[in-house]
Amino acid sequence: MTRRVAVVAAGTSKKWGVYPGTYRDLISEAGKATFDSNPEIKPGDIEGFVVASVFPERSVFQTHVATLAAETVGVTPTKLFQRVENMCASGTIAIRTAYMAIASGLCDVVMVIGAEKMHTPNPVETYLSLMGGVDREYEGALGITAPVQFAFAAQAHIQKYGTTREALAQVSVKNHANAMNNPYAHFHKPCTIEEVLNAKPVTTPFTILECSGITDGSAGMILMSEEKAREYTDKPVFILGTGQCAYGFNFANGPSDLCDWTMLNQAGKDAYKMAGIGPKDVDVAEVHDCFSISEIIISEELGFTEKGKGGEFALQGRSTYGGDVVLNPRGGLLGCGHPLGATGVAQGVELFHQLRGEAGPRQVTGAKIGLGHNLSGLTEHSVLIYGRGDQ
Amino acid sequence: MTRRVAVVAAGTSKKWGVYPGTYRDLISEAGKATFDSNPEIKPGDIEGFVVASVFPERSVFQTHVATLAAETVGVTPTKLFQRVENMCASGTIAIRTAYMAIASGLCDVVMVIGAEKMHTPNPVETYLSLMGGVDREYEGALGITAPVQFAFAAQAHIQKYGTTREALAQVSVKNHANAMNNPYAHFHKPCTIEEVLNAKPVTTPFTILECSGITDGSAGMILMSEEKAREYTDKPVFILGTGQCAYGFNFANGPSDLCDWTMLNQAGKDAYKMAGIGPKDVDVAEVHDCFSISEIIISEELGFTEKGKGGEFALQGRSTYGGDVVLNPRGGLLGCGHPLGATGVAQGVELFHQLRGEAGPRQVTGAKIGLGHNLSGLTEHSVLIYGRGDQ
Repeated sequence: MTRRVAVVAAGTSKKWGVYPGTYRDLISEAGKATFDSNPEIKPGDIEGFVVASVFPERSVFQTHVATLAAETVGVTPTKLFQRVENMCASGTIAIRTAYMAIASGLCDVVMVIGAEKMHTPNPVETYLSLMGGVDREYEGALGITAPVQFAFAAQAHIQKYGTTREALAQVSVKNHANAMNNPYAHFHKPCTIEEVLNAKPVTTPFTILECSGITDGSAGMILMSEEKAREYTDKPVFILGTGQCAYGFNFANGPSDLCDWTMLNQAGKDAYKMAGIGPKDVDVAEVHDCFSISEIIISEELGFTEKGKGGEFALQGRSTYGGDVVLNPRGGLLGCGHPLGATGVAQGVELFHQLRGEAGPRQVTGAKIGLGHNLSGLTEHSVLIYGRGDQ
Repeated sequence: MTRRVAVVAAGTSKKWGVYPGTYRDLISEAGKATFDSNPEIKPGDIEGFVVASVFPERSVFQTHVATLAAETVGVTPTKLFQRVENMCASGTIAIRTAYMAIASGLCDVVMVIGAEKMHTPNPVETYLSLMGGVDREYEGALGITAPVQFAFAAQAHIQKYGTTREALAQVSVKNHANAMNNPYAHFHKPCTIEEVLNAKPVTTPFTILECSGITDGSAGMILMSEEKAREYTDKPVFILGTGQCAYGFNFANGPSDLCDWTMLNQAGKDAYKMAGIGPKDVDVAEVHDCFSISEIIISEELGFTEKGKGGEFALQGRSTYGGDVVLNPRGGLLGCGHPLGATGVAQGVELFHQLRGEAGPRQVTGAKIGLGHNLSGLTEHSVLIYGRGDQ
């Protein structure tokens, strides 16, 4: 039996969007917000430090960012420090790494920072850096970038299950509406289904309102062993389960059915099993709506609805307040933007606040179980399940 | 009590140096060598996959390399996949991550690959990428790059302890001699103290023969829980202990005494304590001789000799075959070169072979305990202690 691991502090940078300061400034904001969320914790308490950041090598010409970030937030990790990179899923991987560090007994107290500065002085640099996130040689350079890959999945879902454009658009409508209640969200503008459908086209079938934004942002968390956590808070939030599953990398090597995300199904099952729960037990979930179709397929593969019914699930309001489960109360990637390394951590921050009943206007009443999900392309999925201290 | 973790397979790419193939080819070589080292293990057995690679974003314009590498070596990780980056120490961090994944119970079988393609079509790109490994804005851009930082440490050691230029050079002589017995080492040319001292100057006091080379290379390992390992080998090599300690990032924020590597001392003590051994028990160690001075200070801080006596320790032959401990039998970074993400993994590969008595002409007779050490700049240190199955 490994040790239980709890989240005891969490925060995000103030306003996601086009960040005017440096990469260090951005990291610093997440560090301050995290420490401010639990004044019992001092920088000297931090033994381990994990950073999620995807391409500072390109955006700010800096590698070796674990100790850079530690120094920036004022901590001196004496037992563990590392940076992780799993493209869009990096934030969740950083939390998993902190979990492993504690569960394995190497550390008692680990801080996680996710930070990404996506905007560079030259927008082409951002575009080219994102191209490095797919198989650049064989796909990126030929234009088979992320929006195109997910558009293929959307077209497949429309064709196979009769999913409507309105259903896809509804995901964006919901998440942009939720973002209105989130001070740090990049996009503070509600939209209707008609506005989504009539927005600027990106790649068929998506319009710009169905694609997550290019956004700078950062987020942080502090995790502790259960014993240690009890010293620092009366309201620990526990990591109950986790799963991670990948099929491959090159898009063309993936499953032939582009809306069959078996790997997510497996990662979810592993996480549910470890947590000893099922999909019906999840009150609130932060899932990776990088494009509108993503949330629809995710709601199916995580078992919130049947395969092929994700569109109806969204349209019928079953994925929002008053429904079966609240997906993306903070506004998701569509409403908040997607600073790669920060996203997974910010999802965890939201679930931390939700399960402590501190989410203000976004609060899901009585939320006891939360689920975080990050993907990196169609075929790589990571899931974390969080539970209130009394679970 | 967490689960014991063992290494059951290990291998490196064939010939380190200027690699003619692609990044994928380089990864593939390490994968093949690792699987070839233990034919009992099939690709389908691999549940977790950790990659150490520092700046593929710059060298091959590719990020998101965990699943790229998994696909390249033919494995489909269904429980864990991640890339780690800790600059020069990335390889050791990848092994630590695999250790945590197994010890925490998330996986039973984890493959580690370290790979770095340092040579690019444009040498300036390699230089600039390395500059991103130090604090680029405040130091790298002003020329305070790694060679300069370690040269300051060498000058401090010479001044404080009277360490001679000959003692520094002896480290290079020994490691280049050891590399003669290592087929994959980049540099197969023995040298004398005089040749080291008269080689092309780099930065005072170092000559080119005292600086680790710009080298492409890769290495791999497979780790398992003890129970699983017994199914696949009669000669598992166990990870007995590990430690990691950092002071900061910016060179100017480090300790004022540049040859006082307290963080290494701490990381070593933590690793020894976890393993239940002391420095005298170590038979063979692969330590981070990025520059000649490094091995001298390392031999002091890891307790192989007294503080200030590292120079004499080298000159008296106490750090080689027939001495107190054999440091860098594979030839170290000076002899093998330093492909950033691969180095720590290749150190582990050497210790695996040494502790199994399979190191051929490099064999340290009766080696039972091995130590691996990676640093990233003067103030970040990571230590792993390996033990033969009967330890």
